[in-house]
Amino acid sequence: MPDRYFDEIEIGQKWVTKGRTITEADVVNFAYLSGDWHSIHTDQEYAAQTSFGRRIAHGALVLSISTGLVPAKRETVLALYGLDRVRFIAPVFIGDTVHLEMEAVEKKEREDGTGVVGFDYRIVNQHGQPVVVCIYKLWMSKRPAN
Amino acid sequence: MPDRYFDEIEIGQKWVTKGRTITEADVVNFAYLSGDWHSIHTDQEYAAQTSFGRRIAHGALVLSISTGLVPAKRETVLALYGLDRVRFIAPVFIGDTVHLEMEAVEKKEREDGTGVVGFDYRIVNQHGQPVVVCIYKLWMSKRPAN
Amino acid sequence: MPDRYFDEIEIGQKWVTKGRTITEADVVNFAYLSGDWHSIHTDQEYAAQTSFGRRIAHGALVLSISTGLVPAKRETVLALYGLDRVRFIAPVFIGDTVHLEMEAVEKKEREDGTGVVGFDYRIVNQHGQPVVVCIYKLWMSKRPAN
Amino acid sequence: MPDRYFDEIEIGQKWVTKGRTITEADVVNFAYLSGDWHSIHTDQEYAAQTSFGRRIAHGALVLSISTGLVPAKRETVLALYGLDRVRFIAPVFIGDTVHLEMEAVEKKEREDGTGVVGFDYRIVNQHGQPVVVCIYKLWMSKRPAN
Amino acid sequence: MPDRYFDEIEIGQKWVTKGRTITEADVVNFAYLSGDWHSIHTDQEYAAQTSFGRRIAHGALVLSISTGLVPAKRETVLALYGLDRVRFIAPVFIGDTVHLEMEAVEKKEREDGTGVVGFDYRIVNQHGQPVVVCIYKLWMSKRPAN
Amino acid sequence: MPDRYFDEIEIGQKWVTKGRTITEADVVNFAYLSGDWHSIHTDQEYAAQTSFGRRIAHGALVLSISTGLVPAKRETVLALYGLDRVRFIAPVFIGDTVHLEMEAVEKKEREDGTGVVGFDYRIVNQHGQPVVVCIYKLWMSKRPAN
Repeated sequence: MPDRYFDEIEIGQKWVTKGRTITEADVVNFAYLSGDWHSIHTDQEYAAQTSFGRRIAHGALVLSISTGLVPAKRETVLALYGLDRVRFIAPVFIGDTVHLEMEAVEKKEREDGTGVVGFDYRIVNQHGQPVVVCIYKLWMSKRPAN
Repeated sequence: MPDRYFDEIEIGQKWVTKGRTITEADVVNFAYLSGDWHSIHTDQEYAAQTSFGRRIAHGALVLSISTGLVPAKRETVLALYGLDRVRFIAPVFIGDTVHLEMEAVEKKEREDGTGVVGFDYRIVNQHGQPVVVCIYKLWMSKRPAN
Repeated sequence: MPDRYFDEIEIGQKWVTKGRTITEADVVNFAYLSGDWHSIHTDQEYAAQTSFGRRIAHGALVLSISTGLVPAKRETVLALYGLDRVRFIAPVFIGDTVHLEMEAVEKKEREDGTGVVGFDYRIVNQHGQPVVVCIYKLWMSKRPAN
Repeated sequence: MPDRYFDEIEIGQKWVTKGRTITEADVVNFAYLSGDWHSIHTDQEYAAQTSFGRRIAHGALVLSISTGLVPAKRETVLALYGLDRVRFIAPVFIGDTVHLEMEAVEKKEREDGTGVVGFDYRIVNQHGQPVVVCIYKLWMSKRPAN
Repeated sequence: MPDRYFDEIEIGQKWVTKGRTITEADVVNFAYLSGDWHSIHTDQEYAAQTSFGRRIAHGALVLSISTGLVPAKRETVLALYGLDRVRFIAPVFIGDTVHLEMEAVEKKEREDGTGVVGFDYRIVNQHGQPVVVCIYKLWMSKRPAN
Repeated sequence: MPDRYFDEIEIGQKWVTKGRTITEADVVNFAYLSGDWHSIHTDQEYAAQTSFGRRIAHGALVLSISTGLVPAKRETVLALYGLDRVRFIAPVFIGDTVHLEMEAVEKKEREDGTGVVGFDYRIVNQHGQPVVVCIYKLWMSKRPAN
């Protein structure tokens, strides 16, 4: 859907992406890049003692990975405008496979014809369970006149 | 502040972290990890033609990096609970240095004594300009009885 | 083009992708991953003495990066079948931006309706100069009956 | 062999390298660097449904890794000249260990005494099965007069 | 302890850090970064034939990881001064979790009030067994007058 | 030299390797991997205020990189035995190119014919200045009887 122009998107349009497996390498690379070394992500002896029983992926990793699943094109998406009410509602374990389900739920046009589209945004695991949800807001182009 | 227990945090307490320079390697690594290859981040010929004039860092990269600047300890921080009203309000360029400014603005206790603390969260560049802001919500432990 | 089915592709169809800047981080990461530490890629004192005058990207890096620019979909592309007559015809320097130009030039059907499509494949820099060329052969699906 | 000068290499000389295990981290890193996220490499739920039964390494990853196994020296190897008839003939799975077997099969001298050597090039797995084959052409130096 | 000033550190003070699991991704990344591809770290067919029975982490990886576990602050630690008698006394396998145990054992003041502190430094695995030991010498600041 | 067997190495033998440029990507990757985010390596605003005037490479990065420059073969080098008197004697800046100079200075044979060889080990920059020095001790194989 975000591969359409602002004026082409209609409230209620939906999109489901293909999946991506969250690997141990992803979790390690995210600890590297973010500098977030909380033991729940990086110490399996510690994690084994928690209620999760093993290491879990960083919420911000799962969110970051999902941004790459959005079918955005540079012609239509100008920028990530914002995120509302992000909630990390279920753990993601190493080996889980997540995909993204989006639905356009709001549009706000600007004077120049561009606008912000809000998507109901659900990152869902291989069991069909949402793990992260939010309203994802993209600033989008209007269709060029020609 | 997030290195204290839930019951020790008081509304109005503030924290300012040290900084981190956003390098070209960080931007490249985030494109790698996220799979977000939007040309504004990864094609300098394209970026030179935009109003920014050069490549900018992914908003989700800046947000991810900030999570590693939070002075969290595993004893006090149980999990990232959520993010409210994340706004990407100014571009971050390669070579900019960002730090984090946090202030506790809300607390919600649970029955078990743990609770969620909301922080006014500002990622600020070397010119003192906020670049990403949100309410950052951590689920935190209570001080263990002993 | 490779986002169509085998039976939908016609000889002569062309595709031009967007670009990607080859960064120093890419060259370093490819030396890491491949283990190819030839001084022309990794020692700028040495490279400065050669006719190139500075470090150049690995040919296999440029080729690898181009594979990610191919607009392949899992529904249509089964596998990379082969590469014919790959030639590294001009150096790629750090900071160059390359894109891909493809043209379908041959099709070979198999008994099961899948087939191999050969593309004239040119990786081109920001000056319009081809830097790597080959015949790129994809094994592709036929359109599913329904 | 490629650690000898052009004029020292004789048709029929052979070289067998030590091996390298292809790890999940390698596959993830190659998806990162190349931007090739085809589900057969990065989604284990999907891969489990294919005839392979699990994720396979990118052909271009295996080829890239092999370039680092070539015993090249900067004194003798000027550049990678080209690749002929590259064929990806068997899948490489995470955990497989590959090595390289090379044999000089053609030499073409240039006026300046340098020349291009073609090697029969086989990347072979731990079961002795070739997985990628090609003719690998290196542009090589002549022995310096002294 | 190294988060105190030179003049605040007393011989005999001890510090135990939290742990970090050494993953396959860490070992792969260290082979990448260092260029040390010894088969004992990177070829599991080879490693299976040795007395270790499987791949082991590079000693320099374990040492490097430990430097990030040192609770250093930029206000108190000026630089890593040196390492004495580093010994790699037990193998670290993929999946092992190591932590750091430090004890201040020597102090040498300089004329300007800064000084070098030597720590008895033990990297210890999840079984309580030291795997790398040394004397770790930090050049540290004195407490600023105010 | 370390590509010879224990019994073939003679005190006084020397080895000089080719160089490697320390890039910004290397410094970023080492901060990632080690978790050592001291501002002198990762915050250029801070580093500009120090006597160095800019970011410097981690000492442990330079040491790690040098281990990959050692011409070790798996047939001759069994393990890294230890490091004596490592001193970080001059800063390494981004863009510097280092190489390694080794000289065998001590040998200790074991009952089984293997032994530990100590090398005077100097990591030297492009100006010929040693930046890290130590005694590097390798546990080496004896030549196999046949």
